[in-house]
Amino acid sequence: MNSAIVFYLIGLIVKVEAALLLVPTAISVIYKDGVTAEFLLSAAIAYLVGWLLSRKKPTDSTMYAREGFTVVALVWIILSAIGALPFYISREIPSYLDCLFEVVSGFTTTGASILTEVESMSPGLLFWRSFTHWVGGMGVLVFAMAILPMADKRAMHLMRAEVPGPIVGKLAPKLHDTAKILYLIYIGLTVTQFILLMLGGMPAFDSAIHAFGTAGTGGFSCKNASIAAYDSAYIHWVITIFMALFGVNFNIYYYLLMKNFRSAFKNEELWWYFGIMAAASLAIAVNIMPMIGSFGSSLRYSAFQVSTIMTTTGFATADFHMWPTFSKGLLVLLMFIGASAGSTGGGLKVSRLLIIGKAAKNEIKRMLHPRVVTAVSMDGKPVGEGTASGAFMYLAIYVFIAAASVMVLTLDGYDLETTFTAMTACLNNIGPGLNLVGPTGNYSFFSPLSKIVLILDMLLGRLEIFPLILGLAIPMPRRGKAKNK
Amino acid sequence: MNSAIVFYLIGLIVKVEAALLLVPTAISVIYKDGVTAEFLLSAAIAYLVGWLLSRKKPTDSTMYAREGFTVVALVWIILSAIGALPFYISREIPSYLDCLFEVVSGFTTTGASILTEVESMSPGLLFWRSFTHWVGGMGVLVFAMAILPMADKRAMHLMRAEVPGPIVGKLAPKLHDTAKILYLIYIGLTVTQFILLMLGGMPAFDSAIHAFGTAGTGGFSCKNASIAAYDSAYIHWVITIFMALFGVNFNIYYYLLMKNFRSAFKNEELWWYFGIMAAASLAIAVNIMPMIGSFGSSLRYSAFQVSTIMTTTGFATADFHMWPTFSKGLLVLLMFIGASAGSTGGGLKVSRLLIIGKAAKNEIKRMLHPRVVTAVSMDGKPVGEGTASGAFMYLAIYVFIAAASVMVLTLDGYDLETTFTAMTACLNNIGPGLNLVGPTGNYSFFSPLSKIVLILDMLLGRLEIFPLILGLAIPMPRRGKAKNK
Repeated sequence: MNSAIVFYLIGLIVKVEAALLLVPTAISVIYKDGVTAEFLLSAAIAYLVGWLLSRKKPTDSTMYAREGFTVVALVWIILSAIGALPFYISREIPSYLDCLFEVVSGFTTTGASILTEVESMSPGLLFWRSFTHWVGGMGVLVFAMAILPMADKRAMHLMRAEVPGPIVGKLAPKLHDTAKILYLIYIGLTVTQFILLMLGGMPAFDSAIHAFGTAGTGGFSCKNASIAAYDSAYIHWVITIFMALFGVNFNIYYYLLMKNFRSAFKNEELWWYFGIMAAASLAIAVNIMPMIGSFGSSLRYSAFQVSTIMTTTGFATADFHMWPTFSKGLLVLLMFIGASAGSTGGGLKVSRLLIIGKAAKNEIKRMLHPRVVTAVSMDGKPVGEGTASGAFMYLAIYVFIAAASVMVLTLDGYDLETTFTAMTACLNNIGPGLNLVGPTGNYSFFSPLSKIVLILDMLLGRLEIFPLILGLAIPMPRRGKAKNK
Repeated sequence: MNSAIVFYLIGLIVKVEAALLLVPTAISVIYKDGVTAEFLLSAAIAYLVGWLLSRKKPTDSTMYAREGFTVVALVWIILSAIGALPFYISREIPSYLDCLFEVVSGFTTTGASILTEVESMSPGLLFWRSFTHWVGGMGVLVFAMAILPMADKRAMHLMRAEVPGPIVGKLAPKLHDTAKILYLIYIGLTVTQFILLMLGGMPAFDSAIHAFGTAGTGGFSCKNASIAAYDSAYIHWVITIFMALFGVNFNIYYYLLMKNFRSAFKNEELWWYFGIMAAASLAIAVNIMPMIGSFGSSLRYSAFQVSTIMTTTGFATADFHMWPTFSKGLLVLLMFIGASAGSTGGGLKVSRLLIIGKAAKNEIKRMLHPRVVTAVSMDGKPVGEGTASGAFMYLAIYVFIAAASVMVLTLDGYDLETTFTAMTACLNNIGPGLNLVGPTGNYSFFSPLSKIVLILDMLLGRLEIFPLILGLAIPMPRRGKAKNK
């Protein structure tokens, strides 16, 4: 393990965070909200930590998968620990564990909150809370790659560990350029949504907050009632559509920009993603129509909720905990399915489930006709054995983690629906669950132990399990060798 | 597909069912309960169907996996359809769908009931209901193999399809003998339990019913309150221990009989099975102690409930729906884990989860040290690639079926806890779930559609998915060939 390069890279990225903290500082100055000094102190601490870690430029810059995982795991933990400081120093959230919960929920784009109400919070802190969604959505390391010069071989290990989904694609010959392209598309879409929300009459501050929350598929709002606070079908639909757009694999947008329509439209995940979304929206609209009245409003509510849950954003226009069991069950199912690979959304990902489904279909075919061999293919290309078995492995470990988390949460003694959906909403980076953690509830009541488990679930969900486990694993001795590192 | 041999074998087994129906007929005669004619009529119908199907001895007796799956799938469906007749003809259960639900629940050893109360039912019918548990537990085809002469190659395909677990072991050189040995052990244990219950003061009829329910890990009782009707710690402990024993791989008993202690005790699943059981019993005992009072009683209730759930039996001595969330959550988790492979219990099976866990651990090791190759091994022997990937595939398809079933059940609009645990209890062949389908509830309120889904879940769970899917699959055309069969 090359610790020197690990510390150095982490140091660089923590310095980037120090710079990022200056954005809410500016907001704090504009709104004169009295937390400017707190932000400056936090930025100074971040810079100091970053400077200490990156002081020595490592002579040996070799980096393997192991180092990549460790950097990713530690960066996400350290950035969260520092990002929690403004909330803690300002005393607007008194417990440090709660501050950490809120910021991890921000960076991992979960959107689960321990706040019972948000509207009294300083504008600077509200902005930082939502800004972490935006930064965490595309990935802090992808961001660092876009702005820092980095060797391709090194960068690939980081990218693989941070970008969600079973297969990572390279858009440009150089990863540095790929990261830049991704961020430019990301910024372009975010700005477009910001303008469209402003045009709909949403205040500039609110428009920024909700554009960040949508882009990162996070879900933090500056209103207690979330998007339901805006009584405008236009705003509901703009957010519905942009949530859906941010749940699409970003490679598709690159292909569209390059006018490579063939590559864009032969993407199988894209069709399944929008297909599931449309079918679920219709089914729920029909199911809730007796409650809502008109089909138009029913579809608006159902499409919004399907989009928010499937992309794992977590905004709300309705308290779906009050909806019929079929709608609630379908939404819980969509929580697990999640968005597309290579998007900012969480969950198991449509493509991973597609690969598992295809492999299972193949296995059944093989059992019937042992002599017929068919390989699993995606987008017309055969998928390697490793990808399929990796997807199964992922599902299995995911199920184990889900079960273990729920068991710890049950110790708090809340009902099973709350307990189960709290884990589901955190592990899939969604935010709201059902009952006590439903769209009108929050996570403040959980015990410290449960909060720690939920923080881990959010990180495991965002980093897709392996980087966190592998990056923090105690080095296992290799067989047949002495236990020296 | 060799249909002639399929029909012939099914016919033989339906004739065996005709003979089995004479056992409750005798009980009906003894108790003069007025349903003797109904039983005789059912037996006659069974014999007629069996005779029609097996009339022609097939000239070509070749049989492959495909035929094995079809025989198993059809046998379980036809035996249930005929087994439901006594309930229907006697009008003691007015709806045929309900009769079918009850008998499928019996044969699959689920123990889920649509009856709101059982004590008013005729003794003959009560006996038949529990006798199906006993017959279904070890497997109707294994029974047929034990008493009918059958070529080994043919029998293996049937055995593989019907005996639960990821690996099927042969105890004797000839399968006919293996089946005989298994049934002798099964009968021996059942009779021992019957005697022990009688010694505890339980009436002979009740002792037989509960020995059948325990042996098959079924759970039907002749009392509305299940085992809670017997206020005897001795009876509770006898049933707790025998449920646990029937959840053990029967090969272990064979090894013990052969004095091959080494083979018996190096079985890893055995240690994990009893380990999980002991740990869960202790944890729940501590958790419910404030409700119950003494540790002794708490342990008696918790050990009974852990044993009944993990072996997927479904008897009850307490309404665990009223227990703390931790205990309820742990019991739901145990529902999925299930019993040992090669036992009469259901669920995912301890050994399958062990294989998945080991493969996942290996994968993580491999990601850290790509050059170190370690194979998954069980009981000291390496497990083939196919076994591990088969276990993953099984888990994945299982999750898909569970999700699809829950979605259909949600249409009925009952709460999510009832809906989710009803599916869980049927797919894992347990019986009671939580809330409306808890130990004091039943399945009568579900819609016909939901009952059909639950019937399918019970069959899928008992036959471990593949035989039912493959046996009933519409023949898929092979690639590159015309669509002729």
